[in-house]
Amino acid sequence: MAKPKSPLTPVRSNSQEDPFLVPGFAAAGIHGGIKKNRRRDLALIVSDPPAQVAGLFTQNRVKAAPVLISQSRVRSGPCKAVLINSGNANACTGDQGMKDAICLARQTAERLGVDEHDVLIASTGVIGERLPVGRIRRALPRLVQHVSPAGILDAAEAIRTTDRFRKAIGSKAVIGGKPVTLCGIAKGAGMIRPDMATMLAFFLTDLKAPDAALRRVLTEGTERSFNRICVDGDTSTNDTVLLLANGRAGNRTAKVGSAEYEAFASMLFPMMDELATMIVRDGEGATKVVELRIRGARSDDEASRLAYHLAVSPLVKTSFYGNDPNWGRLMAALGCAGPWVHPQRIDVSYDQVCLVRNGVAQGKKRADQARKVLKKDAFVLTIDLHLGKGSARVLTSDLTHDYVTLNASYLT
Amino acid sequence: MAKPKSPLTPVRSNSQEDPFLVPGFAAAGIHGGIKKNRRRDLALIVSDPPAQVAGLFTQNRVKAAPVLISQSRVRSGPCKAVLINSGNANACTGDQGMKDAICLARQTAERLGVDEHDVLIASTGVIGERLPVGRIRRALPRLVQHVSPAGILDAAEAIRTTDRFRKAIGSKAVIGGKPVTLCGIAKGAGMIRPDMATMLAFFLTDLKAPDAALRRVLTEGTERSFNRICVDGDTSTNDTVLLLANGRAGNRTAKVGSAEYEAFASMLFPMMDELATMIVRDGEGATKVVELRIRGARSDDEASRLAYHLAVSPLVKTSFYGNDPNWGRLMAALGCAGPWVHPQRIDVSYDQVCLVRNGVAQGKKRADQARKVLKKDAFVLTIDLHLGKGSARVLTSDLTHDYVTLNASYLT
Repeated sequence: MAKPKSPLTPVRSNSQEDPFLVPGFAAAGIHGGIKKNRRRDLALIVSDPPAQVAGLFTQNRVKAAPVLISQSRVRSGPCKAVLINSGNANACTGDQGMKDAICLARQTAERLGVDEHDVLIASTGVIGERLPVGRIRRALPRLVQHVSPAGILDAAEAIRTTDRFRKAIGSKAVIGGKPVTLCGIAKGAGMIRPDMATMLAFFLTDLKAPDAALRRVLTEGTERSFNRICVDGDTSTNDTVLLLANGRAGNRTAKVGSAEYEAFASMLFPMMDELATMIVRDGEGATKVVELRIRGARSDDEASRLAYHLAVSPLVKTSFYGNDPNWGRLMAALGCAGPWVHPQRIDVSYDQVCLVRNGVAQGKKRADQARKVLKKDAFVLTIDLHLGKGSARVLTSDLTHDYVTLNASYLT
Repeated sequence: MAKPKSPLTPVRSNSQEDPFLVPGFAAAGIHGGIKKNRRRDLALIVSDPPAQVAGLFTQNRVKAAPVLISQSRVRSGPCKAVLINSGNANACTGDQGMKDAICLARQTAERLGVDEHDVLIASTGVIGERLPVGRIRRALPRLVQHVSPAGILDAAEAIRTTDRFRKAIGSKAVIGGKPVTLCGIAKGAGMIRPDMATMLAFFLTDLKAPDAALRRVLTEGTERSFNRICVDGDTSTNDTVLLLANGRAGNRTAKVGSAEYEAFASMLFPMMDELATMIVRDGEGATKVVELRIRGARSDDEASRLAYHLAVSPLVKTSFYGNDPNWGRLMAALGCAGPWVHPQRIDVSYDQVCLVRNGVAQGKKRADQARKVLKKDAFVLTIDLHLGKGSARVLTSDLTHDYVTLNASYLT
């Protein structure tokens, strides 16, 4: 997992180098009447030529209408456009929600002159309220007018909900003999949990690659990044990760296992890591990012279970917030997570400061040093169980007053 | 589960009727130098004649020294005294912690002139720090001097940690032809989770009953009460529930299945319910108690899993705090808890207000009514899945600013 960096990759001034200008892609982000205060809430991404697409969607049993629609359309072929709104999830809206989503995708398709089945759709925001379809429909002409190759960062702006900052990252590389551009935008903040596809994220590239390669690289990358982050314990109804590749780069096709595939993976994975880190850094109310490393578990699976248990424990997360090296809470949380642990073998370190060895605290001086580590806005908490070779890494945030404020008054 | 009542059962003025005067029991609660501000932190309960005893202990794999000791002593025979301290859990203290606990139990036994193996011990408070054994030893003579039949409420006071109020309840009944007294004291607040024995609780009675009956009635009662409450998601290292019965009432022995047994159970269970409710009401920072009722699940087990998932979900608990009938979060939490749910069959009611029917919101007026229910300090949230006959009930609290404040600064 990449170390937390500055939240926004700066857009470079030389437009030829701009990784947010992806050949064949154009986008827009405008205010479409869903959010208050005229904030941007409607985004459109267009690809010409049509893009090959891979998608991962929420595993919540309660799936929003746009998820059900996009899930089926991703399977059936190329993608010419993605319509995204924030401010309203169009989830738990029953048949009406399905009709609304289909209608909006259709009207977008008509405006763009493409087949409606080639338009994907994604929503994020309040659950259980009907989309303001009338307002969105009236905004569609303006949205389409604003579509431009330079519009991707506007789209990144428009998919924010409680996100404090826009999440976008871009990169260029030579793959299969051709320059390839890749950019990703994401929204995160609340309801982040490690269940395949944990938020909205859209990756756009001009790479030439078959469906199968896109599916594989997206799945593997998500498993290492977005599936390894926790803000609170719930999975959203709307999580969607899409990878669109329109082939404009004209590279040798990046088939699974080819050098081109490997090159693309090594371009994509760090970007996914970085976006995942941005999402945790921007976890609702979060003041710090903590990388939990479990080592010495009996298996990787047990290590993961322990890491996720710590990552959502309110007692552990408030101790991060309070700069409190309260290793007792770590021990208690480890002990009730399920897997076998042996208290008197456990080592605990905050960054390089070993606070506990063989289950015994290493004195007041170490506690003071650990307190200094806790005051940083990012640190690594390593727990070695000394039982086997299993390990896991999960990123989490602290639980703060602002988390409570944000979530106690989300609707009002 | 009993409705939340006033936090303290008032002590009646007529001492003959006082349910906190249990024949054969005496107790004390003093300041023993563990907590700051000279608050009471050391309690002793003594029984003469020796009491039959049943105990339930934390299932956390990390068990405090006093738990390990009491667990073994409960198995081996009668109990003459219980020494309890708050302010320090004596957990994660290794061999030294075991020595300290054994030493304190021994010194208490010597002072009382009883066998050390007949003294049980319990601790609650900060994990990972050594008990201030010197100070406690010096306080023991004074503790023993203070022991009196009227001292049970002082003991209830002395077992508090972050509890905002003392938890004690008492009752009298005629069983097997004799008046029987039963009282219970408890401490709760943080680290409350439904894993057998979830806090410290001590029930004292002059009932005559065999070991087997005490074990059975305690287990059944705990399953219905203390195992059905959630404040946050972690189980403590120190949870202990003891039932001491010294037989002084001279009733016909309350063997399992006898009328006496049933009479005692119907005396004990409501008291356990009420203490459990007090614990949730006093959940760290809690402003309200919510009874979650899941109905129509495919099985009781699935209903329980759904109820516990909701009971610890930060998004659900902050919505309680914000008086926000955010049923979308309920749906999202239900959808990712594991068991199968069908969104379009789900009904949601806050008390009598049906907010959602068949997965669809019932309008703004209902939402306003639900908001009024949420403003109460106790209400019932009923979710009917319409999939089968499984049901479950769990008590939980809201997640508040004060929870974060309390837990971010526990050590400082």
